[in-house]
Amino acid sequence: MKLGRIAVPTPDGEQIRLVAAQPDQGRVIDLARAYALTLQRKAADPDRARALALAILPGSLAAGIGGGAIFMDAAHEALAAADDASYGIDEVSWRAAVDSPVIRDGLTFEKHIQNFHRIVAKAQPARSIYDRPGYFKGTTAMSYGHNQELPYPDFTEALDWELEVGYVVGKSGSDLTPDTALDHLFGITIFNDFSARDIQGAEMAIGMGPQKCKDFGYGIGPWVTTMDEITSIEGLRGQVRVNGEVLSDTKVEDFVYTPAELLAYVSISDRLQPGDIIGSGTMGFGAGVEIGKFLNPGDVIELELEGVGTLRTPISTERHKAPWWPEPRTYPHEEWVA
Amino acid sequence: MKLGRIAVPTPDGEQIRLVAAQPDQGRVIDLARAYALTLQRKAADPDRARALALAILPGSLAAGIGGGAIFMDAAHEALAAADDASYGIDEVSWRAAVDSPVIRDGLTFEKHIQNFHRIVAKAQPARSIYDRPGYFKGTTAMSYGHNQELPYPDFTEALDWELEVGYVVGKSGSDLTPDTALDHLFGITIFNDFSARDIQGAEMAIGMGPQKCKDFGYGIGPWVTTMDEITSIEGLRGQVRVNGEVLSDTKVEDFVYTPAELLAYVSISDRLQPGDIIGSGTMGFGAGVEIGKFLNPGDVIELELEGVGTLRTPISTERHKAPWWPEPRTYPHEEWVA
Repeated sequence: MKLGRIAVPTPDGEQIRLVAAQPDQGRVIDLARAYALTLQRKAADPDRARALALAILPGSLAAGIGGGAIFMDAAHEALAAADDASYGIDEVSWRAAVDSPVIRDGLTFEKHIQNFHRIVAKAQPARSIYDRPGYFKGTTAMSYGHNQELPYPDFTEALDWELEVGYVVGKSGSDLTPDTALDHLFGITIFNDFSARDIQGAEMAIGMGPQKCKDFGYGIGPWVTTMDEITSIEGLRGQVRVNGEVLSDTKVEDFVYTPAELLAYVSISDRLQPGDIIGSGTMGFGAGVEIGKFLNPGDVIELELEGVGTLRTPISTERHKAPWWPEPRTYPHEEWVA
Repeated sequence: MKLGRIAVPTPDGEQIRLVAAQPDQGRVIDLARAYALTLQRKAADPDRARALALAILPGSLAAGIGGGAIFMDAAHEALAAADDASYGIDEVSWRAAVDSPVIRDGLTFEKHIQNFHRIVAKAQPARSIYDRPGYFKGTTAMSYGHNQELPYPDFTEALDWELEVGYVVGKSGSDLTPDTALDHLFGITIFNDFSARDIQGAEMAIGMGPQKCKDFGYGIGPWVTTMDEITSIEGLRGQVRVNGEVLSDTKVEDFVYTPAELLAYVSISDRLQPGDIIGSGTMGFGAGVEIGKFLNPGDVIELELEGVGTLRTPISTERHKAPWWPEPRTYPHEEWVA
């Protein structure tokens, strides 16, 4: 199943609704509405049917996934009423496919590690990259769904994309092993780890991972494809298009760390939570910097991943400028050598 | 007001309840219970009073804060029924004072920056540290409240603490300035950024910030003191005690970045969410590594911060060992010089 989230108007303002996408049939199914109809066909009172359907199939995909088997059972059952609860797939307003409790992003593809270090870092990759599957964490406040416009931040002249597989967690788990970790994988989506490439180095020098160079926006969507539809993550083809022009054709290959190893490592002394997203790290040639390209205001970027679909992000035509930026402090250590 | 969270048993299992702590009176007040009583005194039906009270004063402090003025109004009104809804302060099971949507942690105190670089990094601080207030993000799955036992992770021989002010966000905000940022500060708490000091350097070398060296546990508590009770954050005294022995006396001083600057910077092209916690970064001599001390299994660490109270964390007597840890990969770049 392909599970996504859309926004619809209501008397109480915008509401997020969970949908099952059927791109072949050109439609998305409002799952709570459809499931309420199936409950009514089984003797539920309409008001109770609506309340129960929204409890089991809420607008929060993370909360829904947390329901475990009852969630997917209800979603499947709801399809029986699909014809009475559908929207045209091109008519809906998408939101980030999943509202993750924690967003993490790894570094697991050898080709990207090579390209990044040769072109951006201009240094040998750290030995540590091959000792353990590193990852950073991102803000959960700035996620963008399919077709949502990303503001172009004024603090960068090098707005870049990163084509990644988003691993979406299906159930809680700590201290997993690669043998058990995939039981905790709910599905995959497309994860666009937008990056302000020109300020990344200065931020990394602080030693705390990315701040503004990443947290202005994460593209997530268009939907999460559940694992029963994915024969193998390895080998999935990916493509990057900007304004319709194909800039990269790539593939999920050359794992330094497999999805199972990445999930297991994340879970050590930490806890995977239902709906967490863990980016695979950029696929080889999946970032603009690897091929000498960046985004301009008004561009439209599309990331395609086999098994999922296409995540399209229009970039704002105007640059977004914050009213304040910190003044550099005097550096107080000119005299001190460690 | 001092707002915290406790766990109580119910027929449905453990439930988290919001409390107002009155340490001088040796009690905590169950705010939803007390507020329901005040609603009943104003003609509410008991069942409706309970439902409304739990909606406005939920176990999630983040959700409660998101209610804005109605939340603090109700909390204050609830105190009228305090005598009928209290627990002894030493009898309750504390949980992390706030369930933050995002945990961030900064680096804003000059003395700690100096100590850390001289002792741990053994290098000059990066110029970037003085150009912008860097911060990392932590997992939200591993927060520990007052008196909750922290498992000692098996992957470290250098379990350390960090005494920090936890800035707790009061309302959403993007692109704030230092002039407006403090309107978004709800209160402060004690933030113990536990650290596995011996693996920190290897993780930082990856360039994505901390993973296992931080995400095994964040101490948050015992409660959040609202800003009306804090005359000035600058100047607040702090103390570190291990097994009752005073190891550090320190003070909130020598800001490289003020709380207003840190909050404003975090909000640029990102969004503060109600209940977010932003650690101040370690106060001078607020970490064990600055004074040559680490924690042993069975130790008890107490962090005291003027205006808040004391956050006590017992360390497990047994080491916690995960069943799997990644094997280092072959380093594929011996031949390649960038």
